[in-house]
Amino acid sequence: MIKITLPDGTIKEHNTGITPMDVAKNISEGLARNVISAKFNDTVVETTTPLTQDGSLVLYTWNNPEGKKAFWHSSAHILAQALEELYPNVKLWVGPAIDNGFYYDVDLGDETISEKDFKAIEDKMLEIARGKHNFSMRAVSKNEALSYYKSKNEYKVDLISNLEDGTITFCDHSSFTDLCRGGHIPNTGIVKAVKILSVAGAYYKGDENEKQLTRVYGISFPKQKELTEYLALLEEAKKRDHRKLGKELELFTFSQKVGQGLPLWLPKGAALRERLEQFLKKAQKKAGYEMVITPHIGQKELYVTSGHYEKYGADSFQPIHTPKEDEEFLLKPMNCPHHCEVFNFKPHSYKDLPKRFAEFGTVYRYEQSGELHGLTRVRGFTQDDAHIFCTPDQLDQEFKNVIDLSLYVLRSLGFEDFTAQVSVRDLQKPEKYIGSVENWEKAENAIINAAKEKGLDFVIESGEAAFYGPKLDFMIKDALGRQWQLGTIQVDYNLPERFDLTYKGSDNELHRPVMIHRAPFGSMERFIALLLEHTGGNFPLWLTPEQAIVLPISEKHEKYAEKVLISLENNEIRALIDNRNETVGKKIREAEMNKIPYMLIVGENEEATNTISVRKHGGEDLGTITLEQFSDLVTKEINSTLKSF
Amino acid sequence: MIKITLPDGTIKEHNTGITPMDVAKNISEGLARNVISAKFNDTVVETTTPLTQDGSLVLYTWNNPEGKKAFWHSSAHILAQALEELYPNVKLWVGPAIDNGFYYDVDLGDETISEKDFKAIEDKMLEIARGKHNFSMRAVSKNEALSYYKSKNEYKVDLISNLEDGTITFCDHSSFTDLCRGGHIPNTGIVKAVKILSVAGAYYKGDENEKQLTRVYGISFPKQKELTEYLALLEEAKKRDHRKLGKELELFTFSQKVGQGLPLWLPKGAALRERLEQFLKKAQKKAGYEMVITPHIGQKELYVTSGHYEKYGADSFQPIHTPKEDEEFLLKPMNCPHHCEVFNFKPHSYKDLPKRFAEFGTVYRYEQSGELHGLTRVRGFTQDDAHIFCTPDQLDQEFKNVIDLSLYVLRSLGFEDFTAQVSVRDLQKPEKYIGSVENWEKAENAIINAAKEKGLDFVIESGEAAFYGPKLDFMIKDALGRQWQLGTIQVDYNLPERFDLTYKGSDNELHRPVMIHRAPFGSMERFIALLLEHTGGNFPLWLTPEQAIVLPISEKHEKYAEKVLISLENNEIRALIDNRNETVGKKIREAEMNKIPYMLIVGENEEATNTISVRKHGGEDLGTITLEQFSDLVTKEINSTLKSF
Repeated sequence: MIKITLPDGTIKEHNTGITPMDVAKNISEGLARNVISAKFNDTVVETTTPLTQDGSLVLYTWNNPEGKKAFWHSSAHILAQALEELYPNVKLWVGPAIDNGFYYDVDLGDETISEKDFKAIEDKMLEIARGKHNFSMRAVSKNEALSYYKSKNEYKVDLISNLEDGTITFCDHSSFTDLCRGGHIPNTGIVKAVKILSVAGAYYKGDENEKQLTRVYGISFPKQKELTEYLALLEEAKKRDHRKLGKELELFTFSQKVGQGLPLWLPKGAALRERLEQFLKKAQKKAGYEMVITPHIGQKELYVTSGHYEKYGADSFQPIHTPKEDEEFLLKPMNCPHHCEVFNFKPHSYKDLPKRFAEFGTVYRYEQSGELHGLTRVRGFTQDDAHIFCTPDQLDQEFKNVIDLSLYVLRSLGFEDFTAQVSVRDLQKPEKYIGSVENWEKAENAIINAAKEKGLDFVIESGEAAFYGPKLDFMIKDALGRQWQLGTIQVDYNLPERFDLTYKGSDNELHRPVMIHRAPFGSMERFIALLLEHTGGNFPLWLTPEQAIVLPISEKHEKYAEKVLISLENNEIRALIDNRNETVGKKIREAEMNKIPYMLIVGENEEATNTISVRKHGGEDLGTITLEQFSDLVTKEINSTLKSF
Repeated sequence: MIKITLPDGTIKEHNTGITPMDVAKNISEGLARNVISAKFNDTVVETTTPLTQDGSLVLYTWNNPEGKKAFWHSSAHILAQALEELYPNVKLWVGPAIDNGFYYDVDLGDETISEKDFKAIEDKMLEIARGKHNFSMRAVSKNEALSYYKSKNEYKVDLISNLEDGTITFCDHSSFTDLCRGGHIPNTGIVKAVKILSVAGAYYKGDENEKQLTRVYGISFPKQKELTEYLALLEEAKKRDHRKLGKELELFTFSQKVGQGLPLWLPKGAALRERLEQFLKKAQKKAGYEMVITPHIGQKELYVTSGHYEKYGADSFQPIHTPKEDEEFLLKPMNCPHHCEVFNFKPHSYKDLPKRFAEFGTVYRYEQSGELHGLTRVRGFTQDDAHIFCTPDQLDQEFKNVIDLSLYVLRSLGFEDFTAQVSVRDLQKPEKYIGSVENWEKAENAIINAAKEKGLDFVIESGEAAFYGPKLDFMIKDALGRQWQLGTIQVDYNLPERFDLTYKGSDNELHRPVMIHRAPFGSMERFIALLLEHTGGNFPLWLTPEQAIVLPISEKHEKYAEKVLISLENNEIRALIDNRNETVGKKIREAEMNKIPYMLIVGENEEATNTISVRKHGGEDLGTITLEQFSDLVTKEINSTLKSF
């Protein structure tokens, strides 16, 4: 008999050799129907693996990330079998599950796969799935494994030759066998819907000097409905792709000559960024922040002091040498070391604290070119950064203030669906953390109290704190339900130590201040990308590049249209005019494409009555109103979004 | 007989062997009294050098830079003699004239010179000067020169060993002899006032591995009054030194860890910069500029295309390598290549032009550490940069607009004393310039017409244009009468070529746009330094960090003082309060030191009548007025400085 512990703490004796699926059946038939994967003593196992010792068992369904992983990993096997059947000369390399689906890298020999072939592959996969073949693992010796693949697949031979004898397993299902570590769903029949998404080139071993293989991407679901929903989401996400919208709306561009991952902000994008920055500057001023400006480089010594050089130096943009003197500079990867030096420009007393230094600081971090993605993964970006230097006793209030500011920012931009994660110490491993236990307690309590008091929906994660302090992360859900991690509020006991920051306390002794790092947007680039995808380019009215466009029905009304434009500008409404010799229908279609919130149509009637006909983006007709009425309407809409702070 | 041509074109025959001084005497005794130096056929000569061939002669007085140079060069000889007499073991190296005075680098053996010794040196110099010793040059052979110095001065021996026999001259005056190329005043008696200014260490040959010598700095004048005035100016300049004021007013600081020449802008300085930037942004928006934002690095390729790499690469901050990919980036030394890529983001039609892209772009240029100076010579600075891309026909209007904007900026900051220099082609050397003759004519005419029409006080300098286009430079005189070169307006035919910039003309063909580079402030750093030294830290009211300070007479009036402060803030007056437990006298003295324009004193009287007693910086008493009156006064003062645009 063995003792199996379940996640709820219940312990039950079972016959040795019982499988996870049997345990599930023991609990309920319903559960057993849904279980597709399992973990025993922190190791992924098959649902059919006999358990032969005491241990903790976790059962997974489709609703767990681990369940999805097993589902997609198993689907990759089905894909591989389908490819073998359809392309007899195919040679398989590897095929893992990924965040959304799975892929398989294969050598197709002389053949190619293109979109027109996807349907046949999907059909073949579904045919295999319907066979309800069990996945079953078996151990093989290294020799056995090598001889299985020897004459037919040099890639697998290479893989196996790097494995240790005694650790090698194959997985069989139907007539198909693959080298595999395990972690499958019970049988192929659970896969009810599949979609081949794309093919791409992929270098063998990720090395561009090696042969280019074909990577076939797919996704699968236990229900057809889920696939349909996923594809609709994908379609919508494509439409909202910030790279596409950014180009269409002329917000930003990239240049091969300037370099990949280094955005150039075009006039409309730069103006949008400026509005976002001014919005935050205003709120920060009210909250007692002071702006500073620091250079984009610093001596290597600065980052040796901060510890960044030791940690990131080799993987960063390499040092800049000076031609005549023995100096080395680094592009700044973060603003904190500079702000510590700002703090250090004169001695401080406890009466000066807290000091809150803010900067829209552009930082540069080296990302491999393959990892770059529009504005969300770049090599240069601007943080809406600030560092608060305060006494340990001030942490509580400061943290609350930062949360207030962050919530104000998120809500003013139309985000209401967000959660937070509080990362605290692992109490079992006090040696991992710097700073006194007393200060850690103060800081963790400050964060948790602030999160509670501000009504945040948050979870506490033990052991997730950095060695230098606890933190709070905001996560937001966008309009497509996707999660984005936004700004962190991080307590830091480390840098004040490294930069020897001090203040004179009321006791006339020198003390270390605590530092808080925070950035509500995170980075201007990533935030604007998120905002583009969240709003589909339909920015809140206060932020959008053009708020209105005047559309004269014909040339006759151009003069009146110009008058309207000037009046709008006088009312500080950002507007433009489309006085091309085109039909109003065409002008409206283009204004729609350009996501301009209000179209002001002016013709004979409007000119005679000194009015405008207002059409909202999307089609709603607001009728014929005066310019004053329109101006009021705009003010009202802006005030309803821009929360007060 | 020889023919001597004078600068006014007159040609006169003289006996061969006539000296420049004789020519002067021939013209007038008055002139002869003032002549202190001369140039014959573009070579500096002594006033006593016999002229033996036809040629052009220029005579210099103290009022010419060349005259001052001879005066100070000669004074360096006198200094050297004085040092030899006072410090018998001294060994001379070199002693040139500099912009303001002269120095001599000497090896003092075991002795040192400090401030207490200056008087004795000055007295000795004046004693020598009063001797009215003539300076007289004589040619010596290399052997003769070497043997003269052999046993007593290894520095001169080294200098001479690198000279060509037959070109070596000595200069004698009184009992003193020095190795010298020439260019002296007639005799020592003309030097009536001398001042030793400072001593510093200076490496032999400028090489830090060589011996450290002593550099003795001095200045001299033909009249005592001029020395007195110069010293007063120096004193005032010291008080206004932007490095000193910047520290006192907490505008900016430097950090050894961040690196020399890389300013950190403290809150007050950053806010001041933000006000200046917003001021210019507003004007630029009116003038049709669009802001863009570009990264602080660019691929090496970008600067190869622009030509900057070839020209400056070796002397710049060296390239940044990436750790894993074969890429090289450079810190941007200018914004123009990036703006060309912004222009290139889509095809343009003549209807789109002019495009005016503006950016407060921070650039990095490597300066040797010895050349760094506060904010005026830094390694990182922010240009108020813009590039106008227009058709050749639009140049005329664009240039006028840029001048209008520049004048608006200068006048709003209290500069009224400025001149301009227009640099045009050398018509004799057409091969030096790129772009068509027609376009050059257009551009030069555009600049000259614009300068005339805008009433600028300007000079035209032929041959001073860059190879890629003509330009206009603004020069301003500060309150101490010192000249500063400010922003340039530069026409450029080169970069549009190199970046293959085009627009479709009305003829449906592709054409090259012209580019204008311009920056009214030049750089934010240098301009703020200039503004600090020009105003002595008393900025125009619209710009100054704090506009008013509320000074309660005692604790009793703190509440009322707070009320006053809130009322000021509501009126958008930047104010603070000094409610320390100090006397009003002390508070006023500190507010004066902090250059706060208005001190608002509140006591029993003021509280009772809901007023404030206003004291202007500098001491003027404006009496007791209401807050409304004060607010009006502030608005009026601001409007009178901030010209309309």
